[in-house]
Amino acid sequence: MQLFKFSSTFLLGICLVTFGSFILFTSCGEDDAIRADINPLFETIPPEAPVPEDNPMTDEKIDLGHKLFFEPRLSRSGIISCNSCHVVGAAGVDHRDRAIGEQGRVGPRNTPTVYNAAFLKAQFLDGRAETLEEQAVGPIQAHEEMDLTPEEAMQRLEESGYRPYFAEAFPDEEEPFTFENLAKAIATFERTLITHGSPFDDYLEGDDDALTELELAGLDLFQETGCLSCHRGPLLGGNSFTRFTHAAEKKSEDTGRYQVTGDPDDRYVFRVAPLRNVELTYPYFHDGSAATLEEAVSIMGESQLGRTFNEEEVEMMVAFLKTLTGEFPIIAHPTLPR
Amino acid sequence: MQLFKFSSTFLLGICLVTFGSFILFTSCGEDDAIRADINPLFETIPPEAPVPEDNPMTDEKIDLGHKLFFEPRLSRSGIISCNSCHVVGAAGVDHRDRAIGEQGRVGPRNTPTVYNAAFLKAQFLDGRAETLEEQAVGPIQAHEEMDLTPEEAMQRLEESGYRPYFAEAFPDEEEPFTFENLAKAIATFERTLITHGSPFDDYLEGDDDALTELELAGLDLFQETGCLSCHRGPLLGGNSFTRFTHAAEKKSEDTGRYQVTGDPDDRYVFRVAPLRNVELTYPYFHDGSAATLEEAVSIMGESQLGRTFNEEEVEMMVAFLKTLTGEFPIIAHPTLPR
Repeated sequence: MQLFKFSSTFLLGICLVTFGSFILFTSCGEDDAIRADINPLFETIPPEAPVPEDNPMTDEKIDLGHKLFFEPRLSRSGIISCNSCHVVGAAGVDHRDRAIGEQGRVGPRNTPTVYNAAFLKAQFLDGRAETLEEQAVGPIQAHEEMDLTPEEAMQRLEESGYRPYFAEAFPDEEEPFTFENLAKAIATFERTLITHGSPFDDYLEGDDDALTELELAGLDLFQETGCLSCHRGPLLGGNSFTRFTHAAEKKSEDTGRYQVTGDPDDRYVFRVAPLRNVELTYPYFHDGSAATLEEAVSIMGESQLGRTFNEEEVEMMVAFLKTLTGEFPIIAHPTLPR
Repeated sequence: MQLFKFSSTFLLGICLVTFGSFILFTSCGEDDAIRADINPLFETIPPEAPVPEDNPMTDEKIDLGHKLFFEPRLSRSGIISCNSCHVVGAAGVDHRDRAIGEQGRVGPRNTPTVYNAAFLKAQFLDGRAETLEEQAVGPIQAHEEMDLTPEEAMQRLEESGYRPYFAEAFPDEEEPFTFENLAKAIATFERTLITHGSPFDDYLEGDDDALTELELAGLDLFQETGCLSCHRGPLLGGNSFTRFTHAAEKKSEDTGRYQVTGDPDDRYVFRVAPLRNVELTYPYFHDGSAATLEEAVSIMGESQLGRTFNEEEVEMMVAFLKTLTGEFPIIAHPTLPR
């Protein structure tokens, strides 16, 4: 269409190119060796997200997913988009204790960040979706979130002129305009939402000066006290499940993975929280009940390690956790179809 | 802050630079002569918005206003921002009949576009605010919209780390962190939201081929039938008030400007709608009751001109109105403070 000469692909392109150069300059490529003197359970974030075979990345699909991620017409009221809760300019979260959706309805859990979600072992805090594609269709249909049926969602997109964008994003398909492809496009866009270049990544790649003494002391404590046994891998978490004793002790209404599997062993089992950018993804825990990192660290010590961190230890640990804050790409607000 | 190396000023800068070059290339500068054979009531959109003396434009203020415009913490729930209704990627509107806000509360009127609002004679459909600065503080406080007191709004911004941004945006003030300056910053950002380069602008600047025969026929009809008497000036509207007979006849609950002035002569008086980008700012009228341009044109003919447009005339008029769609700048989603 003539009216929008600056396509959003163009600007996203700029961002990705900028981002690409940034990767080169800071040399966090795949070939970078992780320093030898660090526990191998630590990993940098890979340069690119893993991509499923049946949903390859293309510019057209990223562009469509970008539009859909910001599309408020995908909610019953027409004002809530994916970005309303997973705010790309706010570390991918909403900073509320629990998510809010249509008509002010409050959802059961804290909003997890969309950044680096492509590297999670499973989606949702109870891991009930395996892939980003499966996840994407959840909130659109959830009564407490966007509250549309797949048919309603597609009808709105039809009326808003989305058909040609689906055709471009899925050029080999006879009927590209499907709810399944909506999910694929959103997931594809989300695979571009990666944060590299944290001080901790720099440290892992060999920069001895990347962390201060206090931060290094926090890193030691993180390893010694056992945090690392669960919070491991590129996201320092997000790749296993464990019982959250604190939730069990306070008899949280939310019993976590048990609600998915029905297995009594899964009572109060949640996905281990990824710690990348944790400084910015407050408040913490499945119910957002911890407002600060200090509070979260103290509770985790008591709950998961059976140990009381003293004030100095909490300070060290928080200092270390703040080194996990990476660089966020700038995302354009897309131009939505008419 | 180390964590966000790409500042939003940077990207907005790119957009403005791109936009700047675009202005140069299409030469819609102030010096451009408007074609002699056109009614002088038509005007192109000036290259820049008028700026009040007590609120000069600076990059820092644009940057702060950009953040605040996208800041959902300025609503009670924490998920509604200015951009939730004035969607910058959707021609500055929400496409709903009437605005929606906190807890799904429906407001009294259709959302006017934020694009080119800097050129309006008065803000709000009843003109109750004179400036963008006055307008900006309305929705934040309105019960049906964002529902915060000024004190609550500033406290949230304080907790979110906004103080330094206010200090940079208002460097000469002893106490820059005020609700008044919040309004000034948002208004400053809004003054960058301008759309140039519509086919009609090209035509006004002398390009005979910019409009098709059908569009030119619509332009003639627009002048001959009297639309131009109200829909004049750079926005083809937005610079005067008039009685909307259709609203009076259907005894609309909303009596327009009368609710502001209490003057019986102002019953059903509304600001004349600006027609720039009207193709994209559906649905139409103060209550969003007309879904399509065709419907709106027919009703306007009956209501304001006392004449029934036939099908062919409606088609011409709509074709002309679509030539008022300009180029939208791409706006980055800002990086919000923590």
